[in-house]
Amino acid sequence: MSDILQQLDAVLAQRRQAAPDSSYVASLHHKGLNKILEKVGEEATETIIAAKDAADGVDTQRQAVVAETADLWFHSLVMLSHLGIESQAVLDELARRFGISGLDEKAARSNE
Amino acid sequence: MSDILQQLDAVLAQRRQAAPDSSYVASLHHKGLNKILEKVGEEATETIIAAKDAADGVDTQRQAVVAETADLWFHSLVMLSHLGIESQAVLDELARRFGISGLDEKAARSNE
Amino acid sequence: MSDILQQLDAVLAQRRQAAPDSSYVASLHHKGLNKILEKVGEEATETIIAAKDAADGVDTQRQAVVAETADLWFHSLVMLSHLGIESQAVLDELARRFGISGLDEKAARSNE
Amino acid sequence: MSDILQQLDAVLAQRRQAAPDSSYVASLHHKGLNKILEKVGEEATETIIAAKDAADGVDTQRQAVVAETADLWFHSLVMLSHLGIESQAVLDELARRFGISGLDEKAARSNE
Repeated sequence: MSDILQQLDAVLAQRRQAAPDSSYVASLHHKGLNKILEKVGEEATETIIAAKDAADGVDTQRQAVVAETADLWFHSLVMLSHLGIESQAVLDELARRFGISGLDEKAARSNE
Repeated sequence: MSDILQQLDAVLAQRRQAAPDSSYVASLHHKGLNKILEKVGEEATETIIAAKDAADGVDTQRQAVVAETADLWFHSLVMLSHLGIESQAVLDELARRFGISGLDEKAARSNE
Repeated sequence: MSDILQQLDAVLAQRRQAAPDSSYVASLHHKGLNKILEKVGEEATETIIAAKDAADGVDTQRQAVVAETADLWFHSLVMLSHLGIESQAVLDELARRFGISGLDEKAARSNE
Repeated sequence: MSDILQQLDAVLAQRRQAAPDSSYVASLHHKGLNKILEKVGEEATETIIAAKDAADGVDTQRQAVVAETADLWFHSLVMLSHLGIESQAVLDELARRFGISGLDEKAARSNE
């Protein structure tokens, strides 16, 4: 898997520079923070609804959870980018909380 | 790096097996899907509020956005785990949408 | 003011019977509960964002809070209607919690 | 009746003046707008989850929808109060949109 998020950060930074009518990412930045945050809230709601449907165990519903969570993470990445924050800062915060070290991956894995 | 997400998945899977009163992750699974989804919604709201405050440019507010986004991603990882979905499926979906290949990282980077 | 909500309940019940392409309310019912709940989540988010902007004291922003809260209440009324619940049940619950008397209902009704 | 909302507005205005440790409403105002908005988001999420459970038709779940919607409306009333907006403004906006007139109730009812 590795650094899909890192690559995604780069793609998002690149697309931010595009013309608003040629890129969804650019159009979001152009519309501004409120629009981006509306999308974060919207996708959180859709994730929750999809998860409730998936709890019944239907396989197609599980794919919907994946798609909605991807939407949620994507729009939160755009939010971070809009505020000039790298997604790495969020991953570092998660690593810190859970005692996972990017520098010391083996040690962390030995705890698994 | 999202190797951190991979390690986090492993930590979350491990903690799910713990006693509910010894681990926050275990207690969330024990309380069930509704409780986990309430947290996803709650953290999405807190992320949005922190982002509005951060837009004023105060540095401490930016750290709050990082912390709230970490909370949001963390609880969505617990949700995926509860439904038996690996976070890799979400990253793969994002990679697919943006033409990023985990298998072909260099090629993806050459597109930046 | 009196019973705007009561009248609104009646309007919503009536519009539910309309053709989906002639009425927004009918189209929401036709699309189903998930669509209605997505709107509840969306409008909650927009209310929160408008309230943050209004906290700066700009008057036009206060009007936005009124409009977004109206959207939020409206879509929650459609949700109740979709589930066969009258909005009066929610008002009764609020009255019960706050020791406002339905006992004094006649007096209240005489104000209509 | 929405006379209940009018009475509730009065109760909320009164409790706002109470000591924060003696009243939940006063404590919300004391904690400030962000805390109030977090509650709006939280209760919107809980309303959505309760509605999904109620769609299965269990009667106890319908009571949960009533309780969560009451929580949602209550916290949005506290938000309006915190921003110095009367709930009547929201009802007026809804009446305006749906052609309901407090002055002309009979006409509105003849449309039912």
